[in-house]
Amino acid sequence: MFLKKSLNLLSNNSRYYTTSTSKSGVANILGKVGIGRLNHVAIATPNLKESCDLYRNVLGAKVSEPVDQVEHGVTTVFVDLGNTKIELLHPIGENSPIQNFLKKNTSGGIHHVCIEVDDINHAVKTLLDENIRIIDPKPKIGAHGKPVVFLHPKSMNGVLVELEEK
Amino acid sequence: MFLKKSLNLLSNNSRYYTTSTSKSGVANILGKVGIGRLNHVAIATPNLKESCDLYRNVLGAKVSEPVDQVEHGVTTVFVDLGNTKIELLHPIGENSPIQNFLKKNTSGGIHHVCIEVDDINHAVKTLLDENIRIIDPKPKIGAHGKPVVFLHPKSMNGVLVELEEK
Repeated sequence: MFLKKSLNLLSNNSRYYTTSTSKSGVANILGKVGIGRLNHVAIATPNLKESCDLYRNVLGAKVSEPVDQVEHGVTTVFVDLGNTKIELLHPIGENSPIQNFLKKNTSGGIHHVCIEVDDINHAVKTLLDENIRIIDPKPKIGAHGKPVVFLHPKSMNGVLVELEEK
Repeated sequence: MFLKKSLNLLSNNSRYYTTSTSKSGVANILGKVGIGRLNHVAIATPNLKESCDLYRNVLGAKVSEPVDQVEHGVTTVFVDLGNTKIELLHPIGENSPIQNFLKKNTSGGIHHVCIEVDDINHAVKTLLDENIRIIDPKPKIGAHGKPVVFLHPKSMNGVLVELEEK
């Protein structure tokens, strides 16, 4: 569907048709989001210590110390997998964004995946043009200090997808 | 828990305490599984064509052609994210291992994550010693032609984890 628009654009006004290669090596054609690397897979856990023990002491991964992100309502721990990371999430407070998730998924589960983009505003515009649902289209500063938006699972094969600007 | 065993082992019989560095650069200490890179995130989808269009034409990723893996009951498509892959899964036949998953998750969802290990038999032995539940502890040849096992979500923070030998 988009491709058709792109080709129309090309034939109508070729100065708008530009290609470039992003830092991730993914071709970034005007109008496409141009997603890059998988930054992390976020796993919510009801017991952060047990999860850290599992990944560090049984699976043998490098596991960071926990960091309380009070303003985001989560404690985070990163598990280094070499090419990407698992982000373990544990709620802080009753208003934590993952509190309800853990009530429904008592053993824990994958809460979201985070994919990098070069330009968050360009990504948002492109996605809205394509009727992809964004939970809040205004980018916010996420837990890593970078602008992020979350794409609605209904538009993304049932997966909550965080886009994070590199 | 494992660390304690390790230290006991070290003090009792230091010749069993060995370290090495795997191809992924993750330290591999005797007894630990030594997990490596995230090979892929598998997303089950009820409509493979729409999912391919989304990743290729809207998000701008490199998307492979679909491959029917009749013996595994799935059609697979790979989405290249640079550092790792998304594996889109669509069922073939009523006995497909993802048919029930899609009945429960009608929009689709993350079915499993796949993490690489150097030695699948060593991984299985270590995990069984640590009482981690493995769905079938006898490695099978997976969709990529390599030996795999699946770890039960109840032992893995609600996440179905495939371990694949490199």
